[in-house]
Order: sequence, then C-alpha cells, then structure tokens
Amino acid sequence: VSTVGKRRTSTAGKRGTGGEDRLTDWLRSRYGLPLLGDDAAMLRLRRPFAVTTDGQIEGVHFPAGLDPAVASRRLLAVNLSDLAAMGAEPRYAFLALAVPPGFDHRRFLGAFVTACGRHGVELAGGDLARDPHGLHAVATLLGTLPEGGRWLRRAGARPGQRLWLSGSVGESALGARLLAGGAAWSSGRVVLPPALAALGAGLRGAARRAVSRHLAPEPALALGTWLGRLQGGRGGGALDVSDGLARDLHRLCRESGCGATLEAKALPQAPRFEALCEELRFDPLELALAGGEDYVLLFTLPARLAPPAEFGCIAIGRIEKGNDVKIERDGAILPLADLGWDHLEG
Amino acid sequence: VSTVGKRRTSTAGKRGTGGEDRLTDWLRSRYGLPLLGDDAAMLRLRRPFAVTTDGQIEGVHFPAGLDPAVASRRLLAVNLSDLAAMGAEPRYAFLALAVPPGFDHRRFLGAFVTACGRHGVELAGGDLARDPHGLHAVATLLGTLPEGGRWLRRAGARPGQRLWLSGSVGESALGARLLAGGAAWSSGRVVLPPALAALGAGLRGAARRAVSRHLAPEPALALGTWLGRLQGGRGGGALDVSDGLARDLHRLCRESGCGATLEAKALPQAPRFEALCEELRFDPLELALAGGEDYVLLFTLPARLAPPAEFGCIAIGRIEKGNDVKIERDGAILPLADLGWDHLEG
Repeated sequence: VSTVGKRRTSTAGKRGTGGEDRLTDWLRSRYGLPLLGDDAAMLRLRRPFAVTTDGQIEGVHFPAGLDPAVASRRLLAVNLSDLAAMGAEPRYAFLALAVPPGFDHRRFLGAFVTACGRHGVELAGGDLARDPHGLHAVATLLGTLPEGGRWLRRAGARPGQRLWLSGSVGESALGARLLAGGAAWSSGRVVLPPALAALGAGLRGAARRAVSRHLAPEPALALGTWLGRLQGGRGGGALDVSDGLARDLHRLCRESGCGATLEAKALPQAPRFEALCEELRFDPLELALAGGEDYVLLFTLPARLAPPAEFGCIAIGRIEKGNDVKIERDGAILPLADLGWDHLEG
Repeated sequence: VSTVGKRRTSTAGKRGTGGEDRLTDWLRSRYGLPLLGDDAAMLRLRRPFAVTTDGQIEGVHFPAGLDPAVASRRLLAVNLSDLAAMGAEPRYAFLALAVPPGFDHRRFLGAFVTACGRHGVELAGGDLARDPHGLHAVATLLGTLPEGGRWLRRAGARPGQRLWLSGSVGESALGARLLAGGAAWSSGRVVLPPALAALGAGLRGAARRAVSRHLAPEPALALGTWLGRLQGGRGGGALDVSDGLARDLHRLCRESGCGATLEAKALPQAPRFEALCEELRFDPLELALAGGEDYVLLFTLPARLAPPAEFGCIAIGRIEKGNDVKIERDGAILPLADLGWDHLEG
C-alpha cells in the first residue's frame, strides 16, 4: 500500500527543504514577490476588480513538449485577454501548476513572472502539484477597473452600433493546424515541417507568423482600457474571441438581446493568410469564423465613434434589432451558424 | 491536419448552443449565480481579502473513478482550509474544470455549487476544458477579513506560546493508504476491500472513518475566524496542515524565526487509529507526523489562552527561541526531521 501522488522527502537546512518550499524561496529571493509564502495572499483593492481563470493543458491547448517558457507566457496571455475584454488593468496572478517529474519549474516560473512584470502583474500565490500526464497549468488573474473607466460587458451591444474587431481572425487556427502538421517552436523560432519546404519564401513567412500568433497571442489590454474609459455610458459590448468569431458573436448578441450582420469581405486577415490557406487546402472563411483562439476583441461602438488608428481595429458589420445573426457574403445575406470550438466535446 | 483539443459543433437555438454555454445557462437558471457569463467576474470588496488556489487531480489527489460530487466537495474543502488558516470568511469561488469526454459535469458542478452555498460562497466564474487523462480541477477562492478580525500569519509564532492542533493527524493519510489498498467510495458510503474482512467491527469502523476523513475533510473555518478576532495583536501563528505536521511545523517556525518542541504523546489521534495502524503494520507516529492532508489548523497562542472547548483543539507543544524543531518522545528530546509530502517529486 503506497500513498498516491506524492513522495516523502527528508532533507535539512534553514531554508525550505521540500522542492515546493525551495521553489518558493527561489521566487521570493530572485523576484521579490512579497505576497508568496502564506496559506493565501492578503490583498486590498479599493476599486472594483475583475477576476478570471483559464488553463493551458499540454496536448490540448499546445503541442506536447513545447518550451515551458512559451507555455507559461501563453497561459498569462489568454487570461490577460479576458481582462482586456472587461476593460480591466491587470494586477495580480495566481498560478496552479501541475507537471510531470523532471519538469523545469524555474524555466516556466521565471518566464511567467517576467511576463507578469511586463504587464504590471504581481504573482501573488499558487499551488504546485504533480501530474504524470503532462503540464497542466491554471492561472487566475485579478484586474482593477481603471480610474474613470467602466466595465465592458457582453450585454452592452445595441442596435445601430457598428461591430469591430481588434485584429485578424483565422491566423491562430491556421497556426494550430500547422503545429498539428509538424511545425515546431525551437530555440525561439518556428521550424516548419519538410512538407512545407516547397512553399515560396513569402508563404513560409506567413506560416511561421501563424504559428507564432497561435503560441504567443497579444492581449489587447490598451484597447480594452481605452474602450472602458470611452464607454462611460456611450459605448457598446465587448468580449474576446477565443472560441471562434461566429460563436463569440452569437454570445454577444444573446447577452445583449439583439442581432447582427457580419460582412465577410470586411473580416481582417493576416498578410498572405488567404494565399496560404489556398495552398494548404483550408477554407480561410471557415478558419476566420470558427477557428478560435484569436484573442482579439470583438466590440461594438455607436456608428459615429471609431477607435484611434493605432489600435488597428476594423469595422466588420452592424448590430441590429431582433436576434438573427447573419453574414453578408457575395451580395447574399445568410444565417451565420453558431459555429465554434466546444470545450466539452472531444 | 486536425485541430488539437476541441471539436467544432453547430446547433441552433436562442440559448447557448455549445456545451459550455449550455452548462453556463443551466448553472444560471438553476442556481442563480449572477456573476457568471462575462469574460471575467466583476467584484467589489471594501474589506481586505485573501486569495488562494489549489487543485485536485484524478489519480494523484484521489483515486481514479471517484464520484465527481465527492471530488468537487474535496476541491472546495482543501481551498476553504487555506482560507480558514488565514482567518478569512469565504466569499467567492472560481473553478477551472478539465475532464475527459463523457464526464458528468452537472453532478460535479451541482455538488460544488451546493457545497459553496453551505459556506456562504458564490461561484463567480470558471473555465471548462477537456483533459483526456482524467478529472483535473483547480479552484481559486476569495475570502474577506471578518469585521474586527486580523489575518492569521505563518510568521506569527513567538517563543513562550503554546502550539495547538484543531484535530487529529494521521487519519487522512491512513485513509489514503486504505484507498490505494482497495477501499472505495460507493453510493455515499465507504466499502472496504475483502482483505479487511477479518478485522473486528470496531476497526472496520475506524477504517471507514479514515477513508471518509481523507475524501471529505472539514475545513476549520469557525476556528480560523475565532482566532483572527482573538488575535488583535495578542495571538500567534497559524497554517493548515496539508503536507504533514512535521513539514508544516518547520514552515511555521521558519517563517516566524523560532523553534519548537512537539510532545509525541500529546498528538491527537482518531478513535482506534493506533490499533488499526498496528493491525495494518503502519507506524502511527509516522502517519501523524508526515502523512499529510489532515486539513487541521496548526496554530500558536500565548500560554494563558486556550480556544473554547467546542473547537476540540489540543495543545501539542511549545514555541521556543532559536530555530531547532524537536520532538519529545519517551522522555527523550530529538530533532524533528522536516518530513512530509513533496508535491514536486514523483
């Protein structure tokens, strides 16, 4: 009869002696992090705050064997994207990290804490465990409502508003397909599989960018807080596109009690995205609508307003009365299916 | 080339159509839960609050195939125990739930929300994902500092104080060994393996209680808030015993900059625990010191103070100057090794 999941260790010394305590000591001595070390982090936030939690699972959200530093930055980015969609300023992170024996904790944690620092986030607590099946990390982020800001809500869209996207869609899903087809991340760059050697340099560049986009999404934090400050009653709805534009637009419309029409030809695409899709026999519109993991903001604004050009946002349609969600394509207006990724179905 | 980890679904209807949206709709319509449904939960807490995160992994923290309702209550309990150790009143829970195909989400979520309700906790957000290897759930809990309370800190122990435990130690580790040896939880009760049929009824009862204790720990929330209110400057240190009494006592002493002597004969034991250990050839003192997952509070108080009898606490030693952690056993005083479970080593 043996105990499940843990192993007894006995060592000596004034500092923490278990591997978990040693790692906490390392984090505290190297990065400061005064909130680590108790049973829970003690916080005080005088302003309203938003909380989100999201995980990254090896072999599910990213390929097995991925550099732990890349996985940890992706974990932070997908959570930051949720805060961006609320108009929040990120403040604190909590990390539950489960990994197989032999895992390089310091590489993962060092990259996580460094990426947190770039966004003004402090790692305030966490939990370490063993998972024999691979890296499985969950982060919880707290972000505060900026001075003069309001929360961005999914329920904020109103008929007559224009629908906007903060960046291109479909490229991340294409990157996921390239990773599944043999592309890899090695020593800080994307390596394409031999099957893609015949592509021209331009398309190979587009393929590498798609993989990078998938592995290293950029949360639209500045846009989120800009929208929140703008919206003092004047703005619309917002959410981040993680499960596919079509599904997330359906969510926006459902929560807001309205409909929408999307213009297919207006959808922003990454450079050479369409040419690369054609070459690889993917339907670019299907990837754009149902690919998911784009981590751009989908939001609405009154027709007379537009975000500053620096955010690179594109108007892609309009919000309407009723509750039909449609797409205008080649002059025809068709129902837009609630297509997207479903986290529950295997 | 196929996409990793998710599957496209297309259905129709006014409510959420993906499995994730349907579950959210079910939770909102059945349990209220007004904070669910946006990219993040919007909160405001005017009082200081504590945040903790902890996970439960199938095959690591509990046996494969365990009733999802039992797993979900255990997940909540281990997190509540961290809040108890801070003297916090639990308020909000966030849940990242990853499960294999075919999992009974509603059983897990229903039990989680119901158990939350018993402790005044609101499920405020979460994330659903697929993990082909089994249930892997992480909860993050927020708890507020009670009116008139102070935080209980690991660093609060002082020489001259007495050391206390809020309940018996070792029983949970014995339960884990019984589970690994074939005991099971079935339809709300513990079923012992045939190998234990020869035990007397009293020992079989003790074995069933050990398994229950392991699977369904009871967080010491009322004691935690009592200590926090008491301690307005007068109290000591506290933490919850999750990795074994010896290791957690070392942590208390290290954070407080002091030493301690534990009295072996004072350690509280569950009824018939010692007899059952003898029968099954386990060392009861080793289980008590290094078993772990007891989820009792280890705390210190000035010698003139004692907790009310209703909390069932037992004085088990004293805090001393220096930084030696010792155990008094059979009249001899020996160094107490920093023994316990290490979450990093497989």
